[in-house]
Amino acid sequence: MRKLILEPGWDESHEWKICVYYEDTDAGGVVYYANYLKFMERARTEWLRSLGVSQHEMALQQARGFIVADLSMKYRAPAQLDDALTIQTTITQARQASLHFAQRVLRNQDVLAEGRIRVGCVEVGSFRPAPLPESLYQQIIQLQQRQ
Amino acid sequence: MRKLILEPGWDESHEWKICVYYEDTDAGGVVYYANYLKFMERARTEWLRSLGVSQHEMALQQARGFIVADLSMKYRAPAQLDDALTIQTTITQARQASLHFAQRVLRNQDVLAEGRIRVGCVEVGSFRPAPLPESLYQQIIQLQQRQ
Amino acid sequence: MRKLILEPGWDESHEWKICVYYEDTDAGGVVYYANYLKFMERARTEWLRSLGVSQHEMALQQARGFIVADLSMKYRAPAQLDDALTIQTTITQARQASLHFAQRVLRNQDVLAEGRIRVGCVEVGSFRPAPLPESLYQQIIQLQQRQ
Amino acid sequence: MRKLILEPGWDESHEWKICVYYEDTDAGGVVYYANYLKFMERARTEWLRSLGVSQHEMALQQARGFIVADLSMKYRAPAQLDDALTIQTTITQARQASLHFAQRVLRNQDVLAEGRIRVGCVEVGSFRPAPLPESLYQQIIQLQQRQ
Repeated sequence: MRKLILEPGWDESHEWKICVYYEDTDAGGVVYYANYLKFMERARTEWLRSLGVSQHEMALQQARGFIVADLSMKYRAPAQLDDALTIQTTITQARQASLHFAQRVLRNQDVLAEGRIRVGCVEVGSFRPAPLPESLYQQIIQLQQRQ
Repeated sequence: MRKLILEPGWDESHEWKICVYYEDTDAGGVVYYANYLKFMERARTEWLRSLGVSQHEMALQQARGFIVADLSMKYRAPAQLDDALTIQTTITQARQASLHFAQRVLRNQDVLAEGRIRVGCVEVGSFRPAPLPESLYQQIIQLQQRQ
Repeated sequence: MRKLILEPGWDESHEWKICVYYEDTDAGGVVYYANYLKFMERARTEWLRSLGVSQHEMALQQARGFIVADLSMKYRAPAQLDDALTIQTTITQARQASLHFAQRVLRNQDVLAEGRIRVGCVEVGSFRPAPLPESLYQQIIQLQQRQ
Repeated sequence: MRKLILEPGWDESHEWKICVYYEDTDAGGVVYYANYLKFMERARTEWLRSLGVSQHEMALQQARGFIVADLSMKYRAPAQLDDALTIQTTITQARQASLHFAQRVLRNQDVLAEGRIRVGCVEVGSFRPAPLPESLYQQIIQLQQRQ
């Protein structure tokens, strides 16, 4: 049976705005390639926060954390100092112990970079796979049904 | 003649809010000490932007840039993941080719870190000292007289 | 016609050793996921240097630079503070204006992370695709024939 | 009684070599100012390692860590991509719960940056001041008497 991977629905995606500072750029005059991953994690964090979840509290109170399992990135055009960027984040698959995200980095209407990221939920300390906190999992399922 | 160094006036200072993400922290569980300098530069950039100045345009159009000449930092208490921080920025001295800033990093009313930074204006490429763009210099002088 | 993608030959790969410092870790107690891309770029830089190429000189003298076009990463196990890591780098495909790398991050014999990176050669400034400097291209072709 | 602050003795200082990679630079074409603090911490870590101390083990086995209390920096000339730098590290004062370092960043014989850093020893988790591990303290005292 072929696994159906839906194209991400960008219209419904979470959006987070950031600005490019000197710290983000390199001597090539553009944003350093690893720093897009920072932008994308900020956006995933804010997406979680929009669902009422603080990762700091989740670690302290539920001993759960997230860890990136794999990812792929396409870089289409470079971002520059002072650019105002929008990071779009959408869930493409939710499982009990992992989440699949699609994310894009845009400057106005131009897609500068896009990525697919699979994040696993783990026990703090041991890094063993662990189910997502139940209330978060339910929220995400409901979110997906609405889309 | 003793040189008069005025205590910075925090009431009038520029404020910029940031959030602490995983990228900012280290294995000690707190914000890595060098990253406060990133936060402070973001705030100086936004202070400049509030005066209508984009460093990217300033480099392209006027071949002027800023470079940090010296700084001092005091770290009072550590910031942690998910903290909402405010960066206060105020000018303590303005000269034709350099600016002295005092900056503080706060969580609510607590001062977590404070710094003094001297920034020189330089010619792009050669890094030779150069006067501030005249309109920026005039704006800063007027700003100081109002305080 | 199916495109043949050879498995990378790790035995012949370039190796570069690095150490994990506080700056590389995050509050989860392990290396932050974006920082593996820094390690891997350091290793690609040292691989180039082992061929006699300095990217700084290449930019100044030949107006050529490299830019990452796409990449994929698998994270297998986390690296921690003070870990001694080895980065293995091997070329899987060389074209006139792009290079495909396979890279691995190891602690002793354990593969902690692995990635595939496609790097394009571009004109400095315009970021338009440009052929690799001829002498570098010839060196890489010879390197591949020896493997 | 005036407090005697000795000029640091660079001849006896610990030396650590690093290379400037793209990740260290910014769109100004030079090393980003906060990154010198990373270089200097790498060097302090290697100085500790040269005394047989791993900070990771110190945290796990003795629940002690280091935290920067204050610092000052002077930036004299910018470092650039591919520069080979030497970081010199010397102790200027050792107390039971804190260490004062002087550090310099050199390219060949040129001092590009220099700093003074006061590091406090703290209890892991609480960040309360704590005495240095006794064997480390004794080693440092002996090191200073030899100079």
